[in-house]
Amino acid sequence: MGQTFYLGADIGGTTVKLAVLQEDGTIVEKWEIPTNTEEQGKSIPSDIAKAIDDKLGHLQIEKNNLAGIGAGAPGFVDTKTGYIHEAVNIGWKDFAFGERLSELTGLPVWVDNDANLAALGENWLGAGEGCSELIAVTLGTGVGGGIIANGNVLNGANGTAAELGHVTVVPDGGAPCNCGKTGCLETEASATGIVRKAKEIVAKYPESSLHKTMATGQLTAKDVFEAVEAGDTPAEQVLKDVSDVLGMAIANMAIAINPEKIVIGGGVSQAGRLLLDPLEVAYRKYALRRTAEASSFDLAELGNDAGVIGGCYLVKKNR
Amino acid sequence: MGQTFYLGADIGGTTVKLAVLQEDGTIVEKWEIPTNTEEQGKSIPSDIAKAIDDKLGHLQIEKNNLAGIGAGAPGFVDTKTGYIHEAVNIGWKDFAFGERLSELTGLPVWVDNDANLAALGENWLGAGEGCSELIAVTLGTGVGGGIIANGNVLNGANGTAAELGHVTVVPDGGAPCNCGKTGCLETEASATGIVRKAKEIVAKYPESSLHKTMATGQLTAKDVFEAVEAGDTPAEQVLKDVSDVLGMAIANMAIAINPEKIVIGGGVSQAGRLLLDPLEVAYRKYALRRTAEASSFDLAELGNDAGVIGGCYLVKKNR
Repeated sequence: MGQTFYLGADIGGTTVKLAVLQEDGTIVEKWEIPTNTEEQGKSIPSDIAKAIDDKLGHLQIEKNNLAGIGAGAPGFVDTKTGYIHEAVNIGWKDFAFGERLSELTGLPVWVDNDANLAALGENWLGAGEGCSELIAVTLGTGVGGGIIANGNVLNGANGTAAELGHVTVVPDGGAPCNCGKTGCLETEASATGIVRKAKEIVAKYPESSLHKTMATGQLTAKDVFEAVEAGDTPAEQVLKDVSDVLGMAIANMAIAINPEKIVIGGGVSQAGRLLLDPLEVAYRKYALRRTAEASSFDLAELGNDAGVIGGCYLVKKNR
Repeated sequence: MGQTFYLGADIGGTTVKLAVLQEDGTIVEKWEIPTNTEEQGKSIPSDIAKAIDDKLGHLQIEKNNLAGIGAGAPGFVDTKTGYIHEAVNIGWKDFAFGERLSELTGLPVWVDNDANLAALGENWLGAGEGCSELIAVTLGTGVGGGIIANGNVLNGANGTAAELGHVTVVPDGGAPCNCGKTGCLETEASATGIVRKAKEIVAKYPESSLHKTMATGQLTAKDVFEAVEAGDTPAEQVLKDVSDVLGMAIANMAIAINPEKIVIGGGVSQAGRLLLDPLEVAYRKYALRRTAEASSFDLAELGNDAGVIGGCYLVKKNR
């Protein structure tokens, strides 16, 4: 028989990240292939199957030593069947992805939302290691979320659980969100939201150093954090507003879940303590005291590997 | 051996509700005993044990045909051990209730928060029957909540999961809450909150019929709903505000849980469709479309029996 391995696949709009892991979580190999989104992404399952076959040959691992594949996609997933209701960036709509990949590889396949996989990854080997209750927040272009409760990922009735980015934080007159609503957390606390807020606030302060940044190029969330570090008062106001609204949204979610750990990941989290410190202050203001006592904040540890590691953990948990 | 029975106990500040159920959920007997809160409620376990012994004798049920006791208390419970961190209305603090009751009765005992038990009861035999994902909201003097996800109650890291009443809905300048925070859902959407809001709004409208009610006695939430039915415009405004904030809070929680069913119980829910209709409108405004599609609203069906039925279900699930 030999050793058992897991395969994780994290399907994004431009690349599919893949990894082979040992049972103890050691990464044997990780690599990427391009995501072919042509014709509604129909060739993705066979591209993945071929990439796995090639790699297993190269690694001299027998296919029957792979316990299965855990795959993540950015969209609404029926985790029982691996059916994708919709994954806009990839082009899938009503696509029996799990079934198709299982046919092509002859392996059992489990599928979940990519943000849930990232939460699972951090829950297995990262900042939320071993927590029965965990909220993972991904602050990138958008705001994603994954929740572990009673030791299991929440998927919900139709795959929309833990969509933290779409919690309403501005009930009236909020900015429009891609989801069709207004005032979602994503409009306020994503990288895009931070830039939008910075432009709004800085417009009132001609002395802000960010005017120079905007004159020479496109403003990014990173520029805003750098301005905060340099002592730019309007940039500090942006950070305060963002932390406050994000802290409230996480506190409200924590009042439902009562987590042991809150893990913050994604590009915006590269700001580190500069973000985490005011965020924790806001969180503790809005959380029940007892809820706050049970929980601590941490930066995500697995970076871009969280998804493939979470995919492998999905196999480990379910096989 | 004979038939198997379950015992449910719902411990409140004035009475302990008790019930014996058959395995299929049929209520064999239900009754109440007074809650003795003297000396930090220390006699409650022995009062319950005695009440059970007396009743079993009367019903001619052998104790070894009882599969166990499921008990609920209003407070923070360690469900693994039945230890009560705090239950203010009853006087318990750091009280090993589950262990004590088990010693006294010789039966296995499972303990949970009373709002969670009510959710479990509705999940077994009431409006949320068989739902894997359920949010139960109790609108009474306060606002309580219970969440079922992946088929199990959420308790969280230290027993404060699903404390829906303490979600922040007014970030700035909200009314003070008993929990020490401000702007909690409980300050806006409980019976007490409804009365508070009604007094505020009605003060601006001398023509409101509620002035007469206030002049002749204490204003209640029921009076507000009756004024709405009679076409009182300021009362309608109160209902609109309350539904809007409650709908938003439930939508935000639903974005975490993605429930199949939302069950509304407690005294305020006696308003029926008068409350449920505007509440659903608000909910659908704030929820993701796909989340809203998966979920429907219902009034709780088990009334005051939800807790004892949920207690029995706790036994059924765990034994």
